[in-house]
Amino acid sequence: MKKLIQNVHVVTMDCYGREYVDGYVAIDGDTILYIGCKEGIPSGFKADRTLDGKGKLALPGFVNAHTHSAMSLFRGYANDIPLIEWLSNAIWPLEDRMKPKDAYWLSMLSIAEMIRSGITTFADMYMFMDQTAKAVADSGIRAVLARGLQGPDANSDERLLENRRLWEQWHGQADGRIKVMVGPHALYTCSSDYLIKCMDLAQELGVELHIHIAETSSEVKECNAKYGFSPVQYLNNIGLFRHPVLAAHCVHLIQEDIEILKFNNVQVAHCPASNLKLGSGIAPIKGLIDSGINVALGTDSAASNNSLSIMREMGLTALINKGIYEDPTIIPARQALNMGTSDGAKALGWDDEIGSLEIGKKADIILINRNLPHYNPIGDPIVHLVYSGRDGDVDTVLVNGQIIMEDGRITTIDLNRVYYEVERIRQRIMSDSGKI
Amino acid sequence: MKKLIQNVHVVTMDCYGREYVDGYVAIDGDTILYIGCKEGIPSGFKADRTLDGKGKLALPGFVNAHTHSAMSLFRGYANDIPLIEWLSNAIWPLEDRMKPKDAYWLSMLSIAEMIRSGITTFADMYMFMDQTAKAVADSGIRAVLARGLQGPDANSDERLLENRRLWEQWHGQADGRIKVMVGPHALYTCSSDYLIKCMDLAQELGVELHIHIAETSSEVKECNAKYGFSPVQYLNNIGLFRHPVLAAHCVHLIQEDIEILKFNNVQVAHCPASNLKLGSGIAPIKGLIDSGINVALGTDSAASNNSLSIMREMGLTALINKGIYEDPTIIPARQALNMGTSDGAKALGWDDEIGSLEIGKKADIILINRNLPHYNPIGDPIVHLVYSGRDGDVDTVLVNGQIIMEDGRITTIDLNRVYYEVERIRQRIMSDSGKI
Repeated sequence: MKKLIQNVHVVTMDCYGREYVDGYVAIDGDTILYIGCKEGIPSGFKADRTLDGKGKLALPGFVNAHTHSAMSLFRGYANDIPLIEWLSNAIWPLEDRMKPKDAYWLSMLSIAEMIRSGITTFADMYMFMDQTAKAVADSGIRAVLARGLQGPDANSDERLLENRRLWEQWHGQADGRIKVMVGPHALYTCSSDYLIKCMDLAQELGVELHIHIAETSSEVKECNAKYGFSPVQYLNNIGLFRHPVLAAHCVHLIQEDIEILKFNNVQVAHCPASNLKLGSGIAPIKGLIDSGINVALGTDSAASNNSLSIMREMGLTALINKGIYEDPTIIPARQALNMGTSDGAKALGWDDEIGSLEIGKKADIILINRNLPHYNPIGDPIVHLVYSGRDGDVDTVLVNGQIIMEDGRITTIDLNRVYYEVERIRQRIMSDSGKI
Repeated sequence: MKKLIQNVHVVTMDCYGREYVDGYVAIDGDTILYIGCKEGIPSGFKADRTLDGKGKLALPGFVNAHTHSAMSLFRGYANDIPLIEWLSNAIWPLEDRMKPKDAYWLSMLSIAEMIRSGITTFADMYMFMDQTAKAVADSGIRAVLARGLQGPDANSDERLLENRRLWEQWHGQADGRIKVMVGPHALYTCSSDYLIKCMDLAQELGVELHIHIAETSSEVKECNAKYGFSPVQYLNNIGLFRHPVLAAHCVHLIQEDIEILKFNNVQVAHCPASNLKLGSGIAPIKGLIDSGINVALGTDSAASNNSLSIMREMGLTALINKGIYEDPTIIPARQALNMGTSDGAKALGWDDEIGSLEIGKKADIILINRNLPHYNPIGDPIVHLVYSGRDGDVDTVLVNGQIIMEDGRITTIDLNRVYYEVERIRQRIMSDSGKI
């Protein structure tokens, strides 16, 4: 199947920063065949389907580098309360009542929200991950999945086995849209022996580790008290960073931590909205970026965000750091957009195929309607997008060359069915736990 | 003309926090006649027009307590650079080339953006304010307008006269949708003598003053150096706060400033996105609110924001303060929504007529579509709105009982004409100033 997107302003996000004001994107199957002016379209290319991009921007889809999609169950449940109270009184008791099939519908709800906001790839870590994989396969989105691992306890070896089976069953599947990582949850939920088991599994499978690091000041305090080291120092001591690592949060760091992360090429998933909402703090993004660390953006889950929008995280990232440092030159718009696209792909180890619009890369493309007040007057489209753009502006989404949203309507998901199933799950779990 | 909104979840934002899950709102002309269950609709009420609210929330329209709508000209122009460079090299040279009629179209663009994001009332301060008034009248929105006043210089008395004429011509006009304030720009652009002239005019007209206070640390530094007082202390010394005052920004305050603001019942318009983007800093909102000061939300202009969305400012306000203080209990969702609605109306001295949905108040009502992924599963609608809500969710907007947006389409503004005129203005001004 061949597709052509015509008359579109293409923002490639390639390393040269190329844009095409009246651009054409030719797609062959799942791959970008051509980007440029009309005259350069390869002779003989005949599109089966043409999409008109007039008044729109074409961009690489956004990359959500850290989320827990099945936690959409908890959106709006127990807010504005301290973290430990939130987890132990609100989230954990309900989480225990979740069944495998629930995770399919809950993941589907998050996937629908992500597609609507232009996210084409996400990195997930949670339980029942095979159900999330199935939702990824069915919805047409792209994802990097890891079984969340805690231990040791009675089930911790079983969880490792689940992560292995996830890899066996899903790595490279769904037309190559799924990759699998190993997901040790955090140093405060895993012993060093268990972390080493996780590292061994990742080594054996040849995949990355996805882990939470230094999310709260109490994590840092406890780590220092227990081990005499900061979380990053401690994880470095046990050899974690000899493996490729996707580290979520990294809010509370000392200078030596930043040097360790840089030296080991650790990929950071910055989750500003979640860190703010839970009162965890604000990550030292300027320090991380200045030191040359690759920083991607993540939403974290709908339980703590409460929304799954990389456009919103880009805007937040660009704004907060300017305000804190009282310096309007920090994180310019293009850098924020890089973090939401190409740097996100790099953080997931997938920049050979996604993260920018380039010939030979996968056709993960979003069209953004800019025939709207907040994109006027005409100006730098990247500036408009980062500082004025909203999720609702996303018009069309392609992943692997397949149209999964068109004119604001998701083609692969029955939304009303998803709302129905999710509400049924919520009522059952709330009722079982005596909350309603 | 009588209207009925049926089957809608009404969030009244009244002082009791009342909500009606399956609510009915009856409107007679510009006024709310009834809110409640179906059975309570006054007998004999016959609607000429019925709006179905199934799957939607009804709320009072958002109040944007500080903006400069004609500055939409500068959206996306010169970003990510220091404030003084931005003002003196980018904004001021172009501003000098603006003609009165330009302000009509530029205001209309901002008004269109505000309507689409559910704003029904805004407070403006700028030049050519009679043109903005005309745009307010034509578009059906509600506004509090002030001529921006600087002096003394050759034109400063003329500007005062313009503010007086604005009051004479527009105060109470457009079916009562327009009020006029007096708009001294700031202490660093007005001498104390000139500020006193502004105060005298406000006193004579019986209206409030709208002024920028303590926006940047350099304003505070210079004020201290010049007068030996903080901006708030200095303005208090010259008697400004004996008048009712709407104070925008208030970013850099000392404890005594907060006490002065509280003692004098000064109304604060907090503009978080603009303060962040310009690198001005982060206002001590927790301190202001804890001391009992009424804090509203403003977008500032599209030049420094770059968008005009109170939904976004609500989310930012709730998030940032939690993160800075590392305390998730600060500014809960309902408080943020209060700031964007009822507290906004109070800040503008208009809470007798707007800011909440109550019998006898003006029918400034917005309907928000929650049949969307990010409002699922069902939960507290206020939490969903503040933490997950997006401008694009606003479906229908009524001001003074008149429908000015329905199903996402503004009924009172020809958007394509606005885009065309604004782009023509931009090209003329850029060309005249040698920028293109």
